[in-house]
Amino acid sequence: MRIKNRDELVEVLGEKAENAIEILEEGLKAADPYEAVLKTLKLKGSEVFVRDLRAEVKGRVFVVGAGKASGRMAEAVESILGELINEGIVIVPRGTANRYKVKRIHLWEADHPIPSKSGVEGASRILELVRELKEDDVLIVLISGGGSALMPLPANDISIEEKQKLTDLLLKSGASIEEINTVRKHVSRIKGGWLAYNAYPATVVSLIISDVVGDPMNMIASGPTVPDPTTFKDAYKILTKYGLLDRVPSTIRGYIEEGVKGAHPETPKPGSKVFSKVYNTIIASNNISLSAMKKKANSLGYNAIILTSFLEGEAREVGSVVASIGKEILVHDRPVKKPAVVLFGGETTVTIRGHGRGGRNQELVLSAAIKIKGLKDILIASIGSDGIDGVTDAAGAMVDGETVLRAERENIDPEQYLLNNDSYTFFKKVGGLVYTGPTGTNVNDFTMILIK
Amino acid sequence: MRIKNRDELVEVLGEKAENAIEILEEGLKAADPYEAVLKTLKLKGSEVFVRDLRAEVKGRVFVVGAGKASGRMAEAVESILGELINEGIVIVPRGTANRYKVKRIHLWEADHPIPSKSGVEGASRILELVRELKEDDVLIVLISGGGSALMPLPANDISIEEKQKLTDLLLKSGASIEEINTVRKHVSRIKGGWLAYNAYPATVVSLIISDVVGDPMNMIASGPTVPDPTTFKDAYKILTKYGLLDRVPSTIRGYIEEGVKGAHPETPKPGSKVFSKVYNTIIASNNISLSAMKKKANSLGYNAIILTSFLEGEAREVGSVVASIGKEILVHDRPVKKPAVVLFGGETTVTIRGHGRGGRNQELVLSAAIKIKGLKDILIASIGSDGIDGVTDAAGAMVDGETVLRAERENIDPEQYLLNNDSYTFFKKVGGLVYTGPTGTNVNDFTMILIK
Repeated sequence: MRIKNRDELVEVLGEKAENAIEILEEGLKAADPYEAVLKTLKLKGSEVFVRDLRAEVKGRVFVVGAGKASGRMAEAVESILGELINEGIVIVPRGTANRYKVKRIHLWEADHPIPSKSGVEGASRILELVRELKEDDVLIVLISGGGSALMPLPANDISIEEKQKLTDLLLKSGASIEEINTVRKHVSRIKGGWLAYNAYPATVVSLIISDVVGDPMNMIASGPTVPDPTTFKDAYKILTKYGLLDRVPSTIRGYIEEGVKGAHPETPKPGSKVFSKVYNTIIASNNISLSAMKKKANSLGYNAIILTSFLEGEAREVGSVVASIGKEILVHDRPVKKPAVVLFGGETTVTIRGHGRGGRNQELVLSAAIKIKGLKDILIASIGSDGIDGVTDAAGAMVDGETVLRAERENIDPEQYLLNNDSYTFFKKVGGLVYTGPTGTNVNDFTMILIK
Repeated sequence: MRIKNRDELVEVLGEKAENAIEILEEGLKAADPYEAVLKTLKLKGSEVFVRDLRAEVKGRVFVVGAGKASGRMAEAVESILGELINEGIVIVPRGTANRYKVKRIHLWEADHPIPSKSGVEGASRILELVRELKEDDVLIVLISGGGSALMPLPANDISIEEKQKLTDLLLKSGASIEEINTVRKHVSRIKGGWLAYNAYPATVVSLIISDVVGDPMNMIASGPTVPDPTTFKDAYKILTKYGLLDRVPSTIRGYIEEGVKGAHPETPKPGSKVFSKVYNTIIASNNISLSAMKKKANSLGYNAIILTSFLEGEAREVGSVVASIGKEILVHDRPVKKPAVVLFGGETTVTIRGHGRGGRNQELVLSAAIKIKGLKDILIASIGSDGIDGVTDAAGAMVDGETVLRAERENIDPEQYLLNNDSYTFFKKVGGLVYTGPTGTNVNDFTMILIK
């Protein structure tokens, strides 16, 4: 993955932008679905290797999966396993199937973030397929962000419209992604470990791209191949907590209430024999990208540290804290000595109060720019690994101590743009937007301080 | 300086609170005015030593100064120099002079944050005294937070009421402390280096306790012994920026406008011979306290780092970022390996939206508590070094992963208390308030992550 406006950024921000771009590109490369599969999945003769797993293919190989990056993952799997693959169905976002060249894996289109009937049909076909698996077979599962909505399979007599209503209510309720998934797993026949349950006793190799901060595997795409520690009781509590018990469709409330009473089987739990031949591996994540960026920064001669892969908070305030650490390095040469790179990963939020255009990365960086005004040799950058920051065509932005001075010389007041959530317009005028185009992956955001 | 409710904190937060308390106390001790003077100023025979300065006392020794901690500094100076001191005037907050035992230095009471006539009289006396100094004499200046308001000496025919009006307008305008001081220096006969100007050619030893983030010496108490890089033009621009040009008294506007035209002498600038025998030394600061805390943490067996002494931002959002770094250490053992201490210094802000009681440190820590809910072996603390957090009698608070669970068991919803800016009430109910009482010093706030 490349940053497309490299020359422009170097012109605006000087030579130090070159290193910053190289480091960011390394993070994007590590998050690329194709590269990540190629790096993890190896074939030697009839043996499949995934890190410390070594599985001889005696029977058949099936490939299933769902997610925004899973089409590209399917391409990579075909390029490695080729004719070893017997059959496959991978669910991808509507209108994207023809982007990928696959012969043996069928790409099925469905919808997100609101699940649809075509998603249900795709999920049913996947479940039918995996039920055919025998002990000697290998199932390769390709999971990435969006997989939860793309592969819905409501339990019992719950309709997809009812499931849609549930998802909609949960998304608007303020519930966390963990809470949303706890509920979803308990009205599903495929999530929360049920896919692995149906594939038993075949060998299951699940390749996962994580878009959830902290990489909890049971949460990514609601963990179809991962033991589920949550219960019907937890799901019931969450509906109560957000006042949704009387608002969700009665079939869903009924199903969960029956589940609490033990009328439906619980999701497969940690320790179940179902998972004895299941290998879940995260092949791309914020954490993996940050490590690649750190290595790159080291190779360019920087002392580099990763401060966190759990970054969260209001973007502009996080920008202040990031700037405060930059100042510490400039003045006191700590927590890391110059030349220094400090890396942060995660996902901030923006409370919209104004009427401008922007994104969380651009807003973080604009706020930081104000705090580092006039300082020399410091650059701060932040981008979304999906290449799409907020409602803009940029991935994020990059600033230095000159950015605000340059703006002020043109009578552009950065504080006003920040107040109006108009960071995109600010950077359009002053320079510093980072363009990658949509990257086809998502491992959250990368934020970086670089000091010469 | 001691934390007064040690046993209670250890009972609520367990053994790990013991180490946290010891580390915080070390920071408070390093900020203590008496201890800081004792550590810096030495007398051997007739020679005075201050770090790398060695000055033989051939003539007289005068002591002057102003600030909330300067009374205590005066006590310490007397305890070291004793009868070597010929005369002294130090301005302290009203009602506090009788707290200090001094014989040779006169403690003069005045007012802050709004300057008063008694402040002017004290400042005039100080200026008269230092004008007597000859080449062989030594002037010791004791500067601490509040010194700017306590030692006002308006230029020309500006009255103290007019100066009060100016200070009042500036404090309410949203101008930064740097901007406020730039204006104040340009309507003063003692600030912005003028005290040093009047003491020339005596040796001037200025002992400074910094309450300004980043320790810019020309900003602390408006830098009476420090070269001033700012100009009448800067002061004029700041009044314009905040729309104060037509609102400040006409004498002040007139004086600054005349200054811009060159009718009044500029403050003494860097490089002036006036400063050739001036030694400004910061004896206590956030930075110095953080270093002492780091050393203490190391001696207790922790890997410790100082992340920043420039911390700023909305308290609750800063709390999120602090928690995100704590999580990184728990999960990935970086940026520093367990057992770990991470230190932050600076001063956050609180945007008040609710009707509760609290302070910036308590709010930061309550927000962090929500983010570390359920995590083991992590403690987060934040206190104001002055011992007074916001509108409360506590210095700050201390939490761990159990804090929110404990609250929830008692049906106390931390989110609601945070929303209502009611962190003090939350901690009153759940435990975790840190009490020191007023410490008589201020080097901003200490924030700490401690992981066993």
